[in-house]
Amino acid sequence: MTKKQVTIVGSGNWATAIARIVGKTVQMHNSEFDDSAVKMWVFEEVFEGRNLSEIINEKHENVKYLAGKKLPTNVIAVTDVVEASKNADVLIFVMPHQHLHKVCEQLKGNIKKSAIAISLIKGLATFHEKDIGLRLISNEISTSLGIDTAVLMGANLANEVAEDHFCEATIGTKNPQHGNELKKLFHTDNFRINVVEDAATVELCGALKNIVACGAGFSVGLGYGDNTMAAIIRIGLMDMIKCIELFYPGANMKTFFESCGFADLLTTCMGGRNRRVCEAFVKSNRPLAEVEKELLNGQSAQGPLTAKEVFEVLQAKNLTKEFPFFVAIHKVCSGETPAKNFLDLIR
Amino acid sequence: MTKKQVTIVGSGNWATAIARIVGKTVQMHNSEFDDSAVKMWVFEEVFEGRNLSEIINEKHENVKYLAGKKLPTNVIAVTDVVEASKNADVLIFVMPHQHLHKVCEQLKGNIKKSAIAISLIKGLATFHEKDIGLRLISNEISTSLGIDTAVLMGANLANEVAEDHFCEATIGTKNPQHGNELKKLFHTDNFRINVVEDAATVELCGALKNIVACGAGFSVGLGYGDNTMAAIIRIGLMDMIKCIELFYPGANMKTFFESCGFADLLTTCMGGRNRRVCEAFVKSNRPLAEVEKELLNGQSAQGPLTAKEVFEVLQAKNLTKEFPFFVAIHKVCSGETPAKNFLDLIR
Repeated sequence: MTKKQVTIVGSGNWATAIARIVGKTVQMHNSEFDDSAVKMWVFEEVFEGRNLSEIINEKHENVKYLAGKKLPTNVIAVTDVVEASKNADVLIFVMPHQHLHKVCEQLKGNIKKSAIAISLIKGLATFHEKDIGLRLISNEISTSLGIDTAVLMGANLANEVAEDHFCEATIGTKNPQHGNELKKLFHTDNFRINVVEDAATVELCGALKNIVACGAGFSVGLGYGDNTMAAIIRIGLMDMIKCIELFYPGANMKTFFESCGFADLLTTCMGGRNRRVCEAFVKSNRPLAEVEKELLNGQSAQGPLTAKEVFEVLQAKNLTKEFPFFVAIHKVCSGETPAKNFLDLIR
Repeated sequence: MTKKQVTIVGSGNWATAIARIVGKTVQMHNSEFDDSAVKMWVFEEVFEGRNLSEIINEKHENVKYLAGKKLPTNVIAVTDVVEASKNADVLIFVMPHQHLHKVCEQLKGNIKKSAIAISLIKGLATFHEKDIGLRLISNEISTSLGIDTAVLMGANLANEVAEDHFCEATIGTKNPQHGNELKKLFHTDNFRINVVEDAATVELCGALKNIVACGAGFSVGLGYGDNTMAAIIRIGLMDMIKCIELFYPGANMKTFFESCGFADLLTTCMGGRNRRVCEAFVKSNRPLAEVEKELLNGQSAQGPLTAKEVFEVLQAKNLTKEFPFFVAIHKVCSGETPAKNFLDLIR
């Protein structure tokens, strides 16, 4: 049996934390996986006068995105995404969503037909006019590359994963054989994987939780305590479940009890960037975009954007009344309704 | 139609916060309820040289247990529990569990046969040797008094409820008509009630969550962050679900999505007393009982006790292996296993 090659498509904070895991798991399962090299696609940048990829390969450390944490020496930075991916049997997509389309275009026709993919990207695929609905990033990858694409989501703040703290994650795939194989690549003593077949639910939880986190931020910003926070997270989860049932019917309720479900929601609402930005927005009384830029060094928070995308789809389908929570988040984020009226909207 | 009389059996922190709500709701529904008086049983004590009951009736404030918050003037302190309860159509039990047996003995035969009860007490009923299993406090009340007993549980820190912050709670009752009636007594703009028929699940969530909160405390005490906290809450909830299914089969999974379920669990794990005591216990490296006394002014935390009670039942039934999380909590609380090995026990 030829050993399987693994490539990580991405090299940011989360990608690097994952590379630390996968570099080790291929060694644990080296009868199945080629443990001599896990290629990691690095979008080349200059860091302190040197190419980031060279520093990574020399120091075994992503000094820009995960400083202070050593990578296994078998993780090899490769700057050409096609070169990094062409022989891969498993492609792990973990990169900023806005560049995914371009990367898939480059990979199209240049990867193994037998390869499988797994997406760790949390968000919704971009919409096309004739295709009004919530589209999955995994679907964007599988459609574009013609390969089966699983997802991995969970309560995983990257820096804590890099500290090897005990945590959990959920792999979603309709293909149990792929699920088994992928579990080997991620499961460790401190990164505990459950595999479920309800893949769309797993992926949508990862995207929609960011909307709820905005509500958590509003609540804290308005001066409310733990009771209100718990109520908002709960009501938000109800809209998540309803929304997933609407667009991808047949969700297994148990999936919401996996790490990708209420556990990830909880972590995101407690300390994630959407929560922080929305809290600061309410307290400052300034436009969200301004607060966002300041707090995230020019990056944007996913929650308000996802809320807008979901709102537009619901509006097109005449379903805004069915989702008072999601609509309320969008109205407050967009400035249409003052934050102080947020609770009135969801009562 | 004779208007229904409502009595609150208890006058502590939570009872007083609830009295503020019920004093108003009987006015909102005064065609059904007698809004001239909501009797509140006060265990008489002397506060700053005066009887607490007299202060409450004069100042309309429970200066000892909920200082600074006015009670509606129709809430009347009564120091004789039989006097307070004998004409009641609805008895709201919200008092320390350890005195419940004695109170029920006093009320037996002295209340209306047509009365109904609702318990807001979170915990497990005491065990009897020949009745090994998890017994419900609501069952203790209904058996003792011969009246139907519903429960109300939820993510409700008493002080935040007294601040009229937006929050939710769940009423559990097998009798939908009683559910409707009771909802009127509690539901307000800021205290949102859902009624479910899965009463045992509602009640057991309120008791078992305290075990999980101990695990949350260990995790923080050991220096772990949000990922580990989320994993522990999730794994703990899995044991809660399994345990409820074992002793009261047929739980509706949706009940765990109510306020009494994961929302209350969350609030308790974030800031409750069990979480705080167990965190301090791990950090201090001293016996739990010592830390508990210090932190809670001589009171005890419910979690370690509930963990012990559940452990003993599981042991008697030879089921400890099925509940690694609950067993781990008990072992660490009892000092049998050092806290630093906690995660090894649940891996």
